[in-house]
Amino acid sequence: MARKKSTTADSAPTAAGGSKSAARSERDRTTARKIENLADGVVSAARKKGDPSLDIPIRSLSNVSFNAKRAILEMGDARQTRNLFNLNMAKKYMQTLLIASASKQLIDAGKTASIRQLYYMSKHTIKGSKSEKTFDEQAESDGIIEDLEVGIDALREELHVFADSRGAMVGEITLTDAGDTIDCTRMGTGGYGIPSIVEPDIIQFKKCTAKFILHVEKGTVWRRFVEDRFWEKHRCILIHGGGQPPRGVRRLLRRMHDELKLPVYCVLDNDPWGYYIYSVVKQGSINLAYESRRMAVPDAKFIGVSAFDYERCGLSDDVQIELDDQDRKRAKQILEYPWFVGKKPWEKEIGKMLKNGFKMEVEAMINKRLTYLTEEYVPMKLKDQKQWLD
Amino acid sequence: MARKKSTTADSAPTAAGGSKSAARSERDRTTARKIENLADGVVSAARKKGDPSLDIPIRSLSNVSFNAKRAILEMGDARQTRNLFNLNMAKKYMQTLLIASASKQLIDAGKTASIRQLYYMSKHTIKGSKSEKTFDEQAESDGIIEDLEVGIDALREELHVFADSRGAMVGEITLTDAGDTIDCTRMGTGGYGIPSIVEPDIIQFKKCTAKFILHVEKGTVWRRFVEDRFWEKHRCILIHGGGQPPRGVRRLLRRMHDELKLPVYCVLDNDPWGYYIYSVVKQGSINLAYESRRMAVPDAKFIGVSAFDYERCGLSDDVQIELDDQDRKRAKQILEYPWFVGKKPWEKEIGKMLKNGFKMEVEAMINKRLTYLTEEYVPMKLKDQKQWLD
Repeated sequence: MARKKSTTADSAPTAAGGSKSAARSERDRTTARKIENLADGVVSAARKKGDPSLDIPIRSLSNVSFNAKRAILEMGDARQTRNLFNLNMAKKYMQTLLIASASKQLIDAGKTASIRQLYYMSKHTIKGSKSEKTFDEQAESDGIIEDLEVGIDALREELHVFADSRGAMVGEITLTDAGDTIDCTRMGTGGYGIPSIVEPDIIQFKKCTAKFILHVEKGTVWRRFVEDRFWEKHRCILIHGGGQPPRGVRRLLRRMHDELKLPVYCVLDNDPWGYYIYSVVKQGSINLAYESRRMAVPDAKFIGVSAFDYERCGLSDDVQIELDDQDRKRAKQILEYPWFVGKKPWEKEIGKMLKNGFKMEVEAMINKRLTYLTEEYVPMKLKDQKQWLD
Repeated sequence: MARKKSTTADSAPTAAGGSKSAARSERDRTTARKIENLADGVVSAARKKGDPSLDIPIRSLSNVSFNAKRAILEMGDARQTRNLFNLNMAKKYMQTLLIASASKQLIDAGKTASIRQLYYMSKHTIKGSKSEKTFDEQAESDGIIEDLEVGIDALREELHVFADSRGAMVGEITLTDAGDTIDCTRMGTGGYGIPSIVEPDIIQFKKCTAKFILHVEKGTVWRRFVEDRFWEKHRCILIHGGGQPPRGVRRLLRRMHDELKLPVYCVLDNDPWGYYIYSVVKQGSINLAYESRRMAVPDAKFIGVSAFDYERCGLSDDVQIELDDQDRKRAKQILEYPWFVGKKPWEKEIGKMLKNGFKMEVEAMINKRLTYLTEEYVPMKLKDQKQWLD
């Protein structure tokens, strides 16, 4: 078997084949420098016999706003100072430096870790105490990771921390992943599993003949499109995120949209959850607003399933799932998101769903005909821009 | 871009590139014949003015037993007759034929559907009624799919029904999936997404230089092995099933074990859930006992994490997660499974976990050292067969 270690190491030193001695990527050098600066601040405060402190932007809702011009969620300027010599802050201060140090260790080793692994890396008994731990549970370290991300302006992926991966891709694109060439036209029925970290030093786009990206909600729907070779007929990339798309999928969508100039079309369930997934793909999530500028795709279009499709497509009542109170409540909340407010087509859409009194799943389209979804419904949607929601 | 439609169609007519006119595989012809026989029985009963009936093996626990010689779960001989002319059975009878008919439609079209899609395919208003539906919810059709599987002795995959897919694979194997060649040594950090249907007419093994299969529980652990290129150093296949492995992963493990003569080693969390996953991989699940003979791997070995590893490996108390009542209850249940009963090493193992009073995750190994898991722990386990549990 031909080994390819050398190629991998050449083209993507910090990725799968990473080693301690390998030259770090520009991205890694930048992140490492940011962490070093953080540490230098502590040292210089200590030398001056001052109170070392960190300055962390506030991540709560009060500091998140919708930038209408850029059409994404953004974090405001409010910041919080975290002092070492303050009983209420000392533990969090120490935790922040521990996480920064673990991240630095990962970068130096050319390795990555999950948020759970980072928790275990950073957990130990505090010296001088009997059994007090630096972290008692993962929820603590997860929050600190987010603090560090905003504190030094580095994405989690840049800190070498990965999330669980979900989602798959096929279609008219060839990319390299850690030096391996992945031709997404030749990935069978399984597809290319989208990793959690898809930054440019790991994944590079090599060749793309696709004209657009079709993003569907679930693997079961994606499979129907793959099986019908939709990507070949329509020259596109087919991607799913296993429900709410994870960070890797969102970042990959954004990179393909930006770098390959590909429009992104979403086919999601006609329910509040589907609307919300669209909103996350397009504007970002409220919790992680600071990442929107690198993960959101403000140009993404919602092409279905629309509440108007029930009548438009002559669907039978077999596809109806009654809305419950929770659905109605969520729908009203979504209507109040700043990026939906004042958008007549969205008000009509969500209003129509509420009036229908039912939701509809993409998978229900099979009730009409086995290939209705892939051969009639979506092609019709792609053709008629008037049906798109923005 | 070179199109490969023809190659695909030649080599795997019923898979991704399936078309109505394509020659069906032997597997499909066999399944279609079984469904036709089912239908013929109805017709001939009707002609004789008899009461059409179906004979369905009983799937409840009372009809499941452990075959100690073959070391898998098996279904017994108890059967239930489902008559059309019986008010209590007529609806289920009708539902069984509807699902059989939908499956036949899928086979004829060379397409597949999810269990949810099958529900929507088969749902309609019963003729002559005002609004009575053939199926009210998916739970009904899911049960009927299982009935049909045992009734005509065909795996779900043979009925062209797929489950949601999870899990990924890399390592020293090259396979074809619907005619596409997938070299698992060149799948980057994302890996090959394991599809739900991995039957021999879709997936064929082409070349394998691996000496064993390492099955890990979660994607986050799998990534650590991928990143450290464990599969290359140890010449193996690395696979994960995203927690409890889905059908596609289990069937693929079994096929690679049988056809490529590869031993299967499991690295799972040291908790009742980890023991249970091992049990499912090895003997099958109680719910779907009838599938064990094609999905279980009775020779699979549990190589870690063992409750004895805490002391054996000198782990710190940072890795401990206290057992709760639920854990203790599950552990005792597992000890009573017939395939654990009387196995001294397993009694010791589970007894030790209960005595420890804590569970341990594979991810916790990073607490010791960043590459402890992949460079020390698992290599040590692979070398010392005395540490394996069977």
